[in-house]
Amino acid sequence: MTPHDTPSTTSATWHEGRVGLWLIGARGSIGTVVAVGLHAMLAELAPPTGCTTAGEAFAGVPLPAFADLVIGGHDVSTTPVRERAHALVESGMLAHRFVATAGDALDRVDAEIRPGYDRATHSGSQADAMRRMAADITDFRERHELAHVVVIDISSTEPIIEDHVEFHDAELFAAALEDADRALLPASSLAALAAIESGSAYACFTPSTGIDLPAIRNLAIERGIPFAGQDGKTGETLVRTALAPMFVARGMRVLSWAGSNILGGGDGATLADPEAVRSKLASKTRGLVSLVGDHVVAPLHIDNVPDLGDVKTAWDHIHAEGFLSSRITMQTIWSAYDSMLAAPLILDIARLLSLAAADGQRGAIPEFGFFFKDPWGSDVHDFSQQTIALREWAHATGVRVHAVAAAESAVAPA
Amino acid sequence: MTPHDTPSTTSATWHEGRVGLWLIGARGSIGTVVAVGLHAMLAELAPPTGCTTAGEAFAGVPLPAFADLVIGGHDVSTTPVRERAHALVESGMLAHRFVATAGDALDRVDAEIRPGYDRATHSGSQADAMRRMAADITDFRERHELAHVVVIDISSTEPIIEDHVEFHDAELFAAALEDADRALLPASSLAALAAIESGSAYACFTPSTGIDLPAIRNLAIERGIPFAGQDGKTGETLVRTALAPMFVARGMRVLSWAGSNILGGGDGATLADPEAVRSKLASKTRGLVSLVGDHVVAPLHIDNVPDLGDVKTAWDHIHAEGFLSSRITMQTIWSAYDSMLAAPLILDIARLLSLAAADGQRGAIPEFGFFFKDPWGSDVHDFSQQTIALREWAHATGVRVHAVAAAESAVAPA
Amino acid sequence: MTPHDTPSTTSATWHEGRVGLWLIGARGSIGTVVAVGLHAMLAELAPPTGCTTAGEAFAGVPLPAFADLVIGGHDVSTTPVRERAHALVESGMLAHRFVATAGDALDRVDAEIRPGYDRATHSGSQADAMRRMAADITDFRERHELAHVVVIDISSTEPIIEDHVEFHDAELFAAALEDADRALLPASSLAALAAIESGSAYACFTPSTGIDLPAIRNLAIERGIPFAGQDGKTGETLVRTALAPMFVARGMRVLSWAGSNILGGGDGATLADPEAVRSKLASKTRGLVSLVGDHVVAPLHIDNVPDLGDVKTAWDHIHAEGFLSSRITMQTIWSAYDSMLAAPLILDIARLLSLAAADGQRGAIPEFGFFFKDPWGSDVHDFSQQTIALREWAHATGVRVHAVAAAESAVAPA
Amino acid sequence: MTPHDTPSTTSATWHEGRVGLWLIGARGSIGTVVAVGLHAMLAELAPPTGCTTAGEAFAGVPLPAFADLVIGGHDVSTTPVRERAHALVESGMLAHRFVATAGDALDRVDAEIRPGYDRATHSGSQADAMRRMAADITDFRERHELAHVVVIDISSTEPIIEDHVEFHDAELFAAALEDADRALLPASSLAALAAIESGSAYACFTPSTGIDLPAIRNLAIERGIPFAGQDGKTGETLVRTALAPMFVARGMRVLSWAGSNILGGGDGATLADPEAVRSKLASKTRGLVSLVGDHVVAPLHIDNVPDLGDVKTAWDHIHAEGFLSSRITMQTIWSAYDSMLAAPLILDIARLLSLAAADGQRGAIPEFGFFFKDPWGSDVHDFSQQTIALREWAHATGVRVHAVAAAESAVAPA
Repeated sequence: MTPHDTPSTTSATWHEGRVGLWLIGARGSIGTVVAVGLHAMLAELAPPTGCTTAGEAFAGVPLPAFADLVIGGHDVSTTPVRERAHALVESGMLAHRFVATAGDALDRVDAEIRPGYDRATHSGSQADAMRRMAADITDFRERHELAHVVVIDISSTEPIIEDHVEFHDAELFAAALEDADRALLPASSLAALAAIESGSAYACFTPSTGIDLPAIRNLAIERGIPFAGQDGKTGETLVRTALAPMFVARGMRVLSWAGSNILGGGDGATLADPEAVRSKLASKTRGLVSLVGDHVVAPLHIDNVPDLGDVKTAWDHIHAEGFLSSRITMQTIWSAYDSMLAAPLILDIARLLSLAAADGQRGAIPEFGFFFKDPWGSDVHDFSQQTIALREWAHATGVRVHAVAAAESAVAPA
Repeated sequence: MTPHDTPSTTSATWHEGRVGLWLIGARGSIGTVVAVGLHAMLAELAPPTGCTTAGEAFAGVPLPAFADLVIGGHDVSTTPVRERAHALVESGMLAHRFVATAGDALDRVDAEIRPGYDRATHSGSQADAMRRMAADITDFRERHELAHVVVIDISSTEPIIEDHVEFHDAELFAAALEDADRALLPASSLAALAAIESGSAYACFTPSTGIDLPAIRNLAIERGIPFAGQDGKTGETLVRTALAPMFVARGMRVLSWAGSNILGGGDGATLADPEAVRSKLASKTRGLVSLVGDHVVAPLHIDNVPDLGDVKTAWDHIHAEGFLSSRITMQTIWSAYDSMLAAPLILDIARLLSLAAADGQRGAIPEFGFFFKDPWGSDVHDFSQQTIALREWAHATGVRVHAVAAAESAVAPA
Repeated sequence: MTPHDTPSTTSATWHEGRVGLWLIGARGSIGTVVAVGLHAMLAELAPPTGCTTAGEAFAGVPLPAFADLVIGGHDVSTTPVRERAHALVESGMLAHRFVATAGDALDRVDAEIRPGYDRATHSGSQADAMRRMAADITDFRERHELAHVVVIDISSTEPIIEDHVEFHDAELFAAALEDADRALLPASSLAALAAIESGSAYACFTPSTGIDLPAIRNLAIERGIPFAGQDGKTGETLVRTALAPMFVARGMRVLSWAGSNILGGGDGATLADPEAVRSKLASKTRGLVSLVGDHVVAPLHIDNVPDLGDVKTAWDHIHAEGFLSSRITMQTIWSAYDSMLAAPLILDIARLLSLAAADGQRGAIPEFGFFFKDPWGSDVHDFSQQTIALREWAHATGVRVHAVAAAESAVAPA
Repeated sequence: MTPHDTPSTTSATWHEGRVGLWLIGARGSIGTVVAVGLHAMLAELAPPTGCTTAGEAFAGVPLPAFADLVIGGHDVSTTPVRERAHALVESGMLAHRFVATAGDALDRVDAEIRPGYDRATHSGSQADAMRRMAADITDFRERHELAHVVVIDISSTEPIIEDHVEFHDAELFAAALEDADRALLPASSLAALAAIESGSAYACFTPSTGIDLPAIRNLAIERGIPFAGQDGKTGETLVRTALAPMFVARGMRVLSWAGSNILGGGDGATLADPEAVRSKLASKTRGLVSLVGDHVVAPLHIDNVPDLGDVKTAWDHIHAEGFLSSRITMQTIWSAYDSMLAAPLILDIARLLSLAAADGQRGAIPEFGFFFKDPWGSDVHDFSQQTIALREWAHATGVRVHAVAAAESAVAPA
């Protein structure tokens, strides 16, 4: 290869083949929007607005194209994605024009969705259930000849779980899973295990436990799985982590940051459960405290207001102290369909985790903190720092992946 | 000096001596708050909250201490600073406890304020007026044995001026200034010239013309003057430049960003003049367009609402398009005493421009864009990028200044 | 008739027959929503939410039923109502389910729409134009055997017009209209004249001039025409007239009430014309001043923000002084589709003006101030007082109309 | 008396002599503001802004003048009112100019404050405690030769109490009070009993129990005591009861009304107790439900945010359904010092309850609902209806009181 043959970063392309996007909770509203959106973009009905990786800052990073993504998943629901999509049109979330021609595409997604794990009705050992789920993913990968599969958990928020000694000991853990009389793990963790078992990259978009137990994390690292989490940063927390550093940079002292969220829809109902909401509230506040200091008073509420449907509205009231104890108040009101904010991030994560997998990365990837309220492997919450870190990671990883691909194609027979 | 003697950046100190802070419009509300604040901090009545340079990020940068600053200035008003301070207590802007013991300190500031230039009543050539003003500054520097003087314009916003051929030709410019029958320059530009003539660093905290005419800028560069501007970024625009990059980083398309500002006080009255406000509005919108693209619709209003006094309240309504044309709306409401936001930045600029002067920098310093709506020498408006740039500049400059100081002290006789 | 035969108010029914609703600007968004809404209610797809006259407070008032209303109108636009309705579905204003089955009903409305008067392209005398329009209305009434026709102007806001001597003198006025070389009247006033000429009741839902010229008003009174106006009170002004009396009742002094409106759609574009908006702003402020006193500072802006479509968002900032000069601030943010707020009021006005016509009322009816920013014949702006007044008027008028009907039916042959 | 002697309502004056205002919790922030405010008005430092009864609508009603009011009270706190007033200046609630000259007036108030009842530390029977408190009031009335005393409870919110059989049976109730081993009543109810025992009118400005137990209410009626309550309607609830009827009058269906309150100060701390806040939240929601229907979803939070001090900020988000299911959203943000809103109402209630007493009214007076979140004796929550009702009551009562006074003065010897 001569110098003028050197591929520029700008012209870098993805050589790995098609990629699977396996969604835990594929028939929910986020999953449905992901499926409709992928169809709409491929049919050129919509540009990739809202997709971070479609921006200029990612030009030249060899990511799988949207057309390279194939969707499958697990879900406990049996309502077809097509039906769900029509309901989202009726509720005003999705424009009719995107769904009108999507029927076949949605049915194809639906055909790739397998029954999810339901702790309440399951019988037999969790290990058996996990192996069945892993086999679903492996089968999906093989049938579609996919280079990688990325498993992303977008299912409903689970209550916080209690600690168990088994979570800290690989042998006890394995034994407990095989015990047909026990159901040690929440569904999200079983899904994470199935991802690992099938050799797939994994991301947790919810505040549920997922991969975040020592025994499971260690297993993922052993098996060479890259993973990322946790709890998608879509709205109020996104705004907070963009704004809080501003106050700090200017030497202002943020005294309080009160928040009130109202929403209906399925998410509203889930979060009406005080136990489920506890994990959400905790992860929302953690980043704030890390950014402005633990003196901050930060009451936070999420209320289920069914008539609002899927639009989430968040009011934040910020009180900062300035020069000579001067009072500064700022209020923000954010209003959007949460699932519409989440869906493009799922596509971004799928593309970027594919790149990580192609690069052979393993363990928690801290630069994915950009996407999450509670970044695994990182204590950076400042959104602008996260933006820089993700871009640098993508370019550096892309250069490595590209160099390998170029080297391989150089030695390949014509 | 052996390596282990090398002073660490953290212990770096300012060796240059005391520094003058010469305020154009020293008797206005910002100037008064600067004077009260400096007193309060030296008397340990208040910490330097709101001062960027007092933050950890500037630890180790050899800046003049607050105690090293001596205040003087020009003003067309003759109302004593002490009296103005009491009025600001009455209006609720300043807490009584800071002003109670500040009388003598304020009188000392007042004694260093010389008559400002009033274009309406002035007779004689502008060159004479400028030389008189420069002499005021030089005299101030010499009497107080100051290492440097930093001139900062905090006077009322002037109307936008028309272009003149003299602004582009040094000789014509000089001749016009000597012509007693002409008054070519607005007051802000005359003040900038006086700063240059006296060899002082200069910053323009208002949207007025100031140093920003080719003939004056060139002169400043020739004379080795560092300068910075323009139009302090204190409230709504600060928020905008912190928030707008968030939308872009997430691939959202900001379609409109409407703003409405209401305030009373002196600033409210000034801005009720549609001519004066035009320059303000233009500089407020420029950064936004640069961040989100020139398709953005950005109506902006400033209204004088006298009953609100010095509290400025700004409502912004942002409409962004997300995935599949989904509507995202965000509103921000910012409410604060504008002069209280500005005052600590004046102290920051004075300290940092002193450092630039000690380093021998000349011309517009782009990294000061952190402080301004319309950054001279830079097209970076993203507040987080500006934050990083300013910190890096300060540390790099500090290391140089420190090295020189260390070298000088090494060769100095015991 | 024995006492127990006396019809109770509750069982009062409309005996007058069907009623025409003739809309000036029938193909605009309000007209389209009126037509779709009437269809939806008759098809039992939607309850009469948003209709004042459907409330319990109007039980027993003998109003025409929704099924008694027949729609026709004038419009300069030729875009069919059916097409317009589909555009409103696409923009998100109308739910698809209401339009899906409305096609035939909308086409029937469309068939009753005649060309509107366009001052720019018209040739011939305005009197001829007016007689043609009156004939359209008369023809409509006769073909459908309508008891009354109510003409309501819902066309685009016109610029404020200048006064003319002809407006104050019936003879000069009549002569000017016959002059083929002059176009004295704006379109809205020509429409009002046509309503009078055809013997129809009239309401002006816009801030345009309409019937509000002395020569035309006098004519209406002479001809026994009841009329009502002006400028529909749908959103921000509605809120203001509900809230302002609260401050007054509690002895607070409202010092300022600043407002900022943003909207796109056709209305946004119309109001981008500073001349057109002037009449709107004036009528919005008038009521406020009347409620809280003329010391109030009330800057008000309307900006055209096309990306927002037909959703109008209004931010109001209210500053009131309380006990011991205490500061009270209140902010309101109102967001809604303006045409959806207007449409049910059009139906209410049609029903109530029919009642007025049945009762033989003539001239401006002050109690209709409930519906308007600028109530003709009344200086009451307090919304709760207007509510009481309208209800009392409706019941009192209803009792009279009912008594006459009962008397007539008593003497009628079996 | 000849016709021209007939006193017009306008010139009606109060003939009853001075009136006592006995405050339960007199040393709290409301009590302090009442005392400072009365001084400021008498010293002509401030007009009666915020006082309902000072408005034109009450012209001609023979109410005691502000100068006729004498303040005393009970409090468990021993912090002098003067000291408290200075603390409120420091916190920014009170302007220094009102407190500067109030020292003697505040000390006089302080000298009339007797120890309040503290259930935690009290020994002996509650009947004894009550008689001691009644004696305090009687002594106050006699020493100052007061025509009436009005007792108003403005002490901290108590937790909701459980029901007891004694509350429903006069004899059991009396016996329980005499039992030194029991403490049946909360402090607020003991204070109400003391008011009755001393023959004073009574109002409950808090959500605590107060007079609202059957045994106590019956006793009050027997003894001819007029009373009013409950829970002062000062901010968010005031706004709600002014706005909610607007939606109803226009036929809109209010689906949800979510609220979030943040405040610091003493009130913030009290309301941080979930038990105490429960009664407050209940009374805030009750009126809303009564106005818009019990289908409304109305989550409501009060958070203690100490750094905000005494400023209470309330955000409300209202979702209403309009024509054809159209979405209407309104948000309100109210921000004010709650004690500054309450204080003038205390003066209003004192003046109006004096009038009721002069008229010999007994029992709950429904027209006082104007002042309260939970109006006793009335289910009217609509603020405009309450406004009309209170004005009519005041005028009707005033006419009677005046007639009696006139008759008495007619028969009195010259």
